[in-house]
Amino acid sequence: MFAARNAALNILLFLSALFILFLLSSMSNLTLELLAPVVALAGLAYSLVFWNAVKRSGDGTPAMQKVAKAISTGARAFVKRQYRTIAILSLVVGVGMILVYGLTASDGMGWTHGFEVGGAFLLGCLLSGLAGIVSMVVATKANLKTAAVSKDGLNASLQMALRGGTVSAIVITSMSLLGISGLYLMYRIGFGMDVGEIPRLIVGYGFGASFVALFAQLGGGIYTKAADVGADLVGKIEAGIPEDDPRNPAVIADLVGDNVGDCAGRGADLFESISAENVGAMILGVALVPYFGIKGILFPLVLRAIGLVAAIIGVYTVKAKPGEAPMKAMIRGFWVTAILTTIALFATSYYMLNAASPIGEGPTWGWFAAAGLVGVLTSVAFVYITDYYTGSQHRPVRAIAQASTTGHATNIISGTAIGMESTGLTVMTVCIALFSSYWLGEQTGLPTGGLYGTAVATMGMLAVVGYVLAMDMFGPITDNAGGIVEMSKAPEEMRRVTDELDAAGNTTKALTKGYAVGSAALAAFLLFSAYLEEAKFTVVDLADVKVFVGAFFGAMVVFFFTSLTIRAVGKAAGVIVEEVRRQFRDNKGLMDGTSEPDYAACVDIATKSALREMIMPGIVAVAAPILVGVVLGKEAVAGLLMVGTIVGVILAAYLNNSGGAWDNAKKYIEMGAHGGKRSPAHQAAVTGDTVGDPFKDTAGPSLHVLIKLFSTLTLALAALFM
Amino acid sequence: MFAARNAALNILLFLSALFILFLLSSMSNLTLELLAPVVALAGLAYSLVFWNAVKRSGDGTPAMQKVAKAISTGARAFVKRQYRTIAILSLVVGVGMILVYGLTASDGMGWTHGFEVGGAFLLGCLLSGLAGIVSMVVATKANLKTAAVSKDGLNASLQMALRGGTVSAIVITSMSLLGISGLYLMYRIGFGMDVGEIPRLIVGYGFGASFVALFAQLGGGIYTKAADVGADLVGKIEAGIPEDDPRNPAVIADLVGDNVGDCAGRGADLFESISAENVGAMILGVALVPYFGIKGILFPLVLRAIGLVAAIIGVYTVKAKPGEAPMKAMIRGFWVTAILTTIALFATSYYMLNAASPIGEGPTWGWFAAAGLVGVLTSVAFVYITDYYTGSQHRPVRAIAQASTTGHATNIISGTAIGMESTGLTVMTVCIALFSSYWLGEQTGLPTGGLYGTAVATMGMLAVVGYVLAMDMFGPITDNAGGIVEMSKAPEEMRRVTDELDAAGNTTKALTKGYAVGSAALAAFLLFSAYLEEAKFTVVDLADVKVFVGAFFGAMVVFFFTSLTIRAVGKAAGVIVEEVRRQFRDNKGLMDGTSEPDYAACVDIATKSALREMIMPGIVAVAAPILVGVVLGKEAVAGLLMVGTIVGVILAAYLNNSGGAWDNAKKYIEMGAHGGKRSPAHQAAVTGDTVGDPFKDTAGPSLHVLIKLFSTLTLALAALFM
Repeated sequence: MFAARNAALNILLFLSALFILFLLSSMSNLTLELLAPVVALAGLAYSLVFWNAVKRSGDGTPAMQKVAKAISTGARAFVKRQYRTIAILSLVVGVGMILVYGLTASDGMGWTHGFEVGGAFLLGCLLSGLAGIVSMVVATKANLKTAAVSKDGLNASLQMALRGGTVSAIVITSMSLLGISGLYLMYRIGFGMDVGEIPRLIVGYGFGASFVALFAQLGGGIYTKAADVGADLVGKIEAGIPEDDPRNPAVIADLVGDNVGDCAGRGADLFESISAENVGAMILGVALVPYFGIKGILFPLVLRAIGLVAAIIGVYTVKAKPGEAPMKAMIRGFWVTAILTTIALFATSYYMLNAASPIGEGPTWGWFAAAGLVGVLTSVAFVYITDYYTGSQHRPVRAIAQASTTGHATNIISGTAIGMESTGLTVMTVCIALFSSYWLGEQTGLPTGGLYGTAVATMGMLAVVGYVLAMDMFGPITDNAGGIVEMSKAPEEMRRVTDELDAAGNTTKALTKGYAVGSAALAAFLLFSAYLEEAKFTVVDLADVKVFVGAFFGAMVVFFFTSLTIRAVGKAAGVIVEEVRRQFRDNKGLMDGTSEPDYAACVDIATKSALREMIMPGIVAVAAPILVGVVLGKEAVAGLLMVGTIVGVILAAYLNNSGGAWDNAKKYIEMGAHGGKRSPAHQAAVTGDTVGDPFKDTAGPSLHVLIKLFSTLTLALAALFM
Repeated sequence: MFAARNAALNILLFLSALFILFLLSSMSNLTLELLAPVVALAGLAYSLVFWNAVKRSGDGTPAMQKVAKAISTGARAFVKRQYRTIAILSLVVGVGMILVYGLTASDGMGWTHGFEVGGAFLLGCLLSGLAGIVSMVVATKANLKTAAVSKDGLNASLQMALRGGTVSAIVITSMSLLGISGLYLMYRIGFGMDVGEIPRLIVGYGFGASFVALFAQLGGGIYTKAADVGADLVGKIEAGIPEDDPRNPAVIADLVGDNVGDCAGRGADLFESISAENVGAMILGVALVPYFGIKGILFPLVLRAIGLVAAIIGVYTVKAKPGEAPMKAMIRGFWVTAILTTIALFATSYYMLNAASPIGEGPTWGWFAAAGLVGVLTSVAFVYITDYYTGSQHRPVRAIAQASTTGHATNIISGTAIGMESTGLTVMTVCIALFSSYWLGEQTGLPTGGLYGTAVATMGMLAVVGYVLAMDMFGPITDNAGGIVEMSKAPEEMRRVTDELDAAGNTTKALTKGYAVGSAALAAFLLFSAYLEEAKFTVVDLADVKVFVGAFFGAMVVFFFTSLTIRAVGKAAGVIVEEVRRQFRDNKGLMDGTSEPDYAACVDIATKSALREMIMPGIVAVAAPILVGVVLGKEAVAGLLMVGTIVGVILAAYLNNSGGAWDNAKKYIEMGAHGGKRSPAHQAAVTGDTVGDPFKDTAGPSLHVLIKLFSTLTLALAALFM
């Protein structure tokens, strides 16, 4: 049923494009307002098509099912406990917001405003939590199906894993869209409010999404790497057994980690990206109401809805030809999505952002569409930059592998240098995108046109988010499938399939991180501007000592937060190491396979310690901007926000890319370079890989969330800093 | 002759204080103008007292002299070649500046202005170069004397090393002061210029100092760590011989490195700090001429002159009581200097910054003196923060040592987390100092009073620079003395003395780095403000896309530059490793000690590769602000400058503190913890130490220079960006 033919695809593509054009040209405002929620609901319904396909597939051998069951039980137990904690934290913050607004406002509207912002916050929390839970549930089902179908060859497995990822991708994207457009409709039609007022009532939604994403990513990220490091330290190094060996008591915890860290965490992360960017762009759209009417406000929602359709089409085109690398097939799907998105971008701009330029430089839509194209190209650029810095066929990974031959220290030094170097292209790309989209927007001659240009670029970059999310979720699903195949002692040819997919999964995970950093950086400028709109000032003067101190403090908080997340992994891993050692010591039959390890005990301990360790960095992240805002005022918060974002983007790029490069340098040596497995170079490369684990899977992704949390928090609490 | 008694000291202190007060109260403007150059010249003369004492001391055994001779020859050869390269680069830039100013100015004053700025640039280059060369010459003499006198016990050696350091400290401080005050006198009396015009004519001087410091620190820093890493990789790991073993062909290069990296490099670094801060403060002083006359401009010079006297007194008080740790005696001297400086600060403020506040809040001097005290306290705070993060008696180093027991990777992860954590206290201290000194300055009610408050705080912090420099130079001198004692196979009790001093030297080196970062951060705000004065604008609006892009770019350049310096060490070390391997292979008698290694070949190769590798990061550092300035304009440069500085300070603190903590975690294990030497924990700790080497001795110190280069370069070239 997955075998969508190219011809069929082309027709589908053509028809959808025509349909969209037709729909847009004839539509009233109400049609436009209803488009996003309708597409979102349709998307949710359509995700069931993929879900059913996944569910109907075979379950493999009983041995496989047993492993999958253990993973799924562990993941559910963690996510249940984690989201209970997050729910309590969210309620405290939500109610706190309502109270603070209610008690401090002087205009008599405090309680109303409090319920609007606080209510939107809680809705954002709820939907983000749901998105995370769905991602985890889907992944813990798709992993087994992918493992089982690997007996049918690479393409079947590839499609199964990607379709599993697509379920989550659609759900996340649709849910975010539904929340925002639902709130919009409620205020607009339910309460009959002025359209220009609405965006600022739903800023709480973005904050709620960020808040849940922060703890989801922190808890999941700490869990996954603590389990990984803990399993490796005792298993590989002390007991000398291979990775994913069923004798290792922490091996299930390690596999659970992929689901709760990569799936639930990244799902919440990108849910938040979309939400924050939509809210920010809608706020900026208000300034353009005199030119575009409410179309300027609805544009981000409509474009996102069409992007969702493009992503689904993109997924259908992925089919590995015999002998083709899975990555190549997936990149082809990405290109299809990017091209469809670009077409949609120009069509939507034409119909929604079309006004005569007040300075006579022609109609405005072309400039904005070009700015959007800059965003699409930026997403492509990030795919290639990440590939260059973390792919084993290029200089950086080769250099680290070479440096491993002279020992552990030179491996680390080399990886550090490569990671820092990678910030160069990353930042250059963002700077060029920002500057050129601003310039393009300015050519429209509209007031705040430049700013809206960067907003459209961000929308362009995030328009492909559905496909990127599907690729990202693909990673942990195949990683798990590999573990299931390995632990169930399945035949060699199945392992070869899952190994190849797993390698591709590592790449897609790295690509998504690059994309997430890039989009966060691009979105940042638009979110700053939205904050300035909200807080009613226009200049953030770094030469003002308060702003400078706020900026300095913000940059520091990024480093300090990173330190906390890295230490959290270390602490949680330490607890797991002790438990694994205890089991090896007390359970004498473990090493020779005569008795089973107590997987559940490791899962339980990992859960407890990850949840304990996520609190401190979370509090620092939320408290820092509030502290600066209350003590030094709204301008200083802007300094914190902007410079914190700059530093966060750079540090995240460093952490993600050095971690990815270390990982692949190890894999490159394992494939036979510099003496291969168990050579001294390999040992040094394992050290680098282990150092890179918390860098790329805990600290880096948590920084993406931190950056956006700064933006959404200051947006939602702007009133408090004034 | 060094045995200054406490009673004598107190009298000396009292008399100097009285003398200063008397002198100040009766002085005319001319007396004030002459004070700084006279004290500088007197300081240069007085440095001969210390120098003679060092020279007259005994030369030790012929074996010691032979080692010392080899070090001194190598150091001279490197410095000669290095400064030849730097001289050419300086001439190119200096002449380039004259040409650009001459050819681009539209007011007909281009050539005059060009010669003023370019000439001051070349003078700054010349004096900075001289300061670096003197530091190297003194250190390569004092190392032998310290080694020789170690037979007389700890105190004799301690005093010898510190006096050696003091010679350089006085020369550096005096030379900087002489250059600026000499230029001032030349313009003022020679050319009869208006006093308000003068500070902006000597901005080139600060740029010259930074320019030379950049290449001195880069070249020296790359040399010293390439030689260190190269010697360790082959010697310790491959050949299994201990550190400083005479059979290692790279051992002399390693010892040379201490002199050219730590002495010449750090000397140029702090020469530049003083120069930049003086010039910046003088520019801000111009705005206060209506209130203080030229006293507001001369204040920084006078305070620096008195601080020099205080530092000399401080050095005289250092005397280790029997059984006392050398560090304790040195910290006592630091406190004496700090207290004397504070007294001088209040006296000088009283006589030079005394005006009625225009808003009736009492006289102005008290507020400014309090701001200066904030600066002095900041320098004290940095000493304690650095000690906490890099001293083996505190949590951070202990945690790294503990993490070493689970392997190389956990050692690195733990050190990374500790280094990032250390940015917290560092930045908090700077923020509090900045904000409170600004607030204190504002209370004077003078226009730009707040700004001048931060300037006085910076002066207060840098007033103790003479003593800090002496402590810093103490480090490489004792390090070398230890090497000389070891290589000449001197008796065990002499080794014990130099080992203890060497440990103290590691601490003083770490403290100086903390101090250098802190003072750079504090000076930054004042240098920005001076740039805004020069470039004639007042607002640096981060919400302006050009400024934001400039800021983003600036933050990235800091990471990219760091990457280049770390890679440079790796590349240069690789070349040395090959040479050492070649000698071990070709020279069969090397390992059993029957034939001598070719030390000179290693020195020569290290020299060549360090000089080659210093060019690229140097060019990036100079080109980045010019590029941004020319393409995006003066506001964007301000963004680059400010955010680049923020990120540079934080990254430098991270690199310095993680490096120092790794170093001491290794030493802590070597003293017996976690299995002691040759345990698995020790091996992991050696990895951390090696990773930390380029962090703390190449990248970190180069970043201090980079930060200030950004400031002085933009100041000097402000006219080009307008």
